[in-house]
Amino acid sequence: MPKEIIEVNQDIYEDTSILAREINKKLTEKKIYTVNILGGAGAGKTSVLIQIANRLGSIDKFVIEGDLESDIDTKKLQALGFKSYQINTHGTCHLNAPMIQAIIGKIELGNGGMLFIENIGNLVCPAEFEIGEHLKVLICSVPEGSDKPYKYPIAFQKAGAVILNKKDLMPYIDFDRDYFLSGVRAVNPVIPVFEVSCKTGEGFDAVVGWLLKSSSFLR
Amino acid sequence: MPKEIIEVNQDIYEDTSILAREINKKLTEKKIYTVNILGGAGAGKTSVLIQIANRLGSIDKFVIEGDLESDIDTKKLQALGFKSYQINTHGTCHLNAPMIQAIIGKIELGNGGMLFIENIGNLVCPAEFEIGEHLKVLICSVPEGSDKPYKYPIAFQKAGAVILNKKDLMPYIDFDRDYFLSGVRAVNPVIPVFEVSCKTGEGFDAVVGWLLKSSSFLR
Repeated sequence: MPKEIIEVNQDIYEDTSILAREINKKLTEKKIYTVNILGGAGAGKTSVLIQIANRLGSIDKFVIEGDLESDIDTKKLQALGFKSYQINTHGTCHLNAPMIQAIIGKIELGNGGMLFIENIGNLVCPAEFEIGEHLKVLICSVPEGSDKPYKYPIAFQKAGAVILNKKDLMPYIDFDRDYFLSGVRAVNPVIPVFEVSCKTGEGFDAVVGWLLKSSSFLR
Repeated sequence: MPKEIIEVNQDIYEDTSILAREINKKLTEKKIYTVNILGGAGAGKTSVLIQIANRLGSIDKFVIEGDLESDIDTKKLQALGFKSYQINTHGTCHLNAPMIQAIIGKIELGNGGMLFIENIGNLVCPAEFEIGEHLKVLICSVPEGSDKPYKYPIAFQKAGAVILNKKDLMPYIDFDRDYFLSGVRAVNPVIPVFEVSCKTGEGFDAVVGWLLKSSSFLR
């Protein structure tokens, strides 16, 4: 790859990471704990988000949905009573700080709460862009296979927690849990890994307990 | 996004599409039908490739494996006796024509055959880059969910065929086939959609029949 393209990419990172820090500062001041939800297409990001949000009780919850096109998930979330806002990137493969900055201005954030930002379904690019979050959570799923940490290490490196979704499909799929966990540990030795099922709700109490503990510095 | 960045991206497309046409010309002259295999992480691209290759009989087969990191799939393919070559992009989210150009020089292509290029697992970026292929095949999977054509239309638009993998998981998953097919048809009215299972081998005879027909202009 030519040198000048690498330089342009570096500029992009630098510019948006400064803005990301400003967004993070603002959200921290407002005590809005912000979670950047990463994962491949179809890992179950929205379903996981709904399971978590439903267990957060009286905490004020906001959701920003990132998609190339469509507002399927935002409509689903709004129908469930969540304050949800849509970003359509029309081709761009990740959310970035300017997109978040633009939409946050439109949200009436109170004082305190949690903001979930569901990134574009893509196990590669979104991991490389800061968008103002306090935490990145990586959603994987059993049918994706146990080799993902080896093939897509950057997302696992950058995440603060891994949620392995669709645990209910384990009996029907040749998923090697030890191989998966070894791969995660190889790139990120201390990261918690939660196994969950959105179908049965299994595993989410542990996720939410951990999330509340992680966000307690803001309360 | 700043204007100058868009211009740089346009340049990337222009430069690599010229090289892609040159690669395509060379492969056509050598009667190597070349398939660019797209799909999200864990859709089953390598497993589909193996099922297809195993049914191609005496046709000469070559595989280029694209991954961010690791050579898991290349080793798997080599162990099965396929001529396989690895590209590691170390972070780059798609294969491009210069990468293919560099590796094709190392492959002893005969006269006639099929070359499968498995792109990076990513339902977004790889669809936008020509790499010298005659055909793009998009691998989806049942557990990814039936809303993918609505959320990731570009990949469905650019593909010449869709293979819906992991059909065997239908009984355990809430997958709406009509909704999926309507979404595919909305962006690509004439594309064939094959439902397959790598676990049972179901559906692959139709895929291979179609592929042989599509590539017959080279024989």
